[in-house]
Amino acid sequence: MPRPWKETIEAHRRDVRDAILECTSALVAEHGLRSVTMSQIAEQAGIGRATLYKYFPDIETILLAWHERQVATHLDHLAHVRDQAGEAGARLQHVLVAYAFISRQSRGHGDSAVRAFLHRDEQVAQAHRRLHDMIGDLLAEGARSGAFRDDVPADELATYCLHAVSGAGELPSEDAVHRLVTVIMTGLRRVSGPP
Amino acid sequence: MPRPWKETIEAHRRDVRDAILECTSALVAEHGLRSVTMSQIAEQAGIGRATLYKYFPDIETILLAWHERQVATHLDHLAHVRDQAGEAGARLQHVLVAYAFISRQSRGHGDSAVRAFLHRDEQVAQAHRRLHDMIGDLLAEGARSGAFRDDVPADELATYCLHAVSGAGELPSEDAVHRLVTVIMTGLRRVSGPP
Repeated sequence: MPRPWKETIEAHRRDVRDAILECTSALVAEHGLRSVTMSQIAEQAGIGRATLYKYFPDIETILLAWHERQVATHLDHLAHVRDQAGEAGARLQHVLVAYAFISRQSRGHGDSAVRAFLHRDEQVAQAHRRLHDMIGDLLAEGARSGAFRDDVPADELATYCLHAVSGAGELPSEDAVHRLVTVIMTGLRRVSGPP
Repeated sequence: MPRPWKETIEAHRRDVRDAILECTSALVAEHGLRSVTMSQIAEQAGIGRATLYKYFPDIETILLAWHERQVATHLDHLAHVRDQAGEAGARLQHVLVAYAFISRQSRGHGDSAVRAFLHRDEQVAQAHRRLHDMIGDLLAEGARSGAFRDDVPADELATYCLHAVSGAGELPSEDAVHRLVTVIMTGLRRVSGPP
């Protein structure tokens, strides 16, 4: 049975929107935010310029929409990783590894100007707070069960984790990323004896 | 005995230059990079516009000069802290605390656009590499003496330290900054037994 007309239209609009987002992100990564034009995007996406403007008024808006979709996808993935079975320590480790690899990937997207522009977005700040809370909750859970230190508030430990793990973007190999997460996890241990 | 004429001139030029740097940094912190004018800077520094242009062609150049001077001062301070007596562990801890407080202070200077602009500067990137090496050397020294873990290259541990300590900018209090450095130092310990 063919899909109802309305559904078909919506699926089509979603496909066009996705194509616009993908083409823009690829063009900006290659040429930089300042040198990409709406005409190039329309051409790459295989649509007319007039059609493109029915979807988005300018490149900045497209780029923000693309980035918000990326961030939402990453956050869903991290929540999924967190919700696996296991104790807080193992789950936190998996979340940190997953986030480390996301950070590494994201560094490929455009130069620092593009990143600064994208990270001024309020939805991105919200996503960052949700990730902070996700990690803070695991840390509080682990502190109660004795897996993590309880001499430092979980909220501060979450700041430590998120900043430390962002170092993954500078590391030379995947093995190094795993070592980084091991070091971060060591920092969360209960300490006995002199440091 | 009065100073020779040449020295007096040079001291005067240095004073004027310093005054320009200070005024610009204060104006930009208050009003943002985009809304400060060369006339405002000249007025605040108590010099004529023509004189200002003999020193600097535009605000960006002034801001970079100010920032490079700040960064050089910070780096000297950190090297001084590193060179105190003591074993690698204690010296690294002092360097990290000092750097954490510098990071916290610097967050007050302007918005993210100003920060992004300043951090594109090559001299700043160089200073960052020098700091990375300074910390890497302490870590290598401590690994040899048994103070730090040796299962992770010192260079990667330096990346961990610098990223983790940048979290200081988000923390609510000086006590929290000291706790952060304690956690970072725990991460550097040799690990025995399961994590």
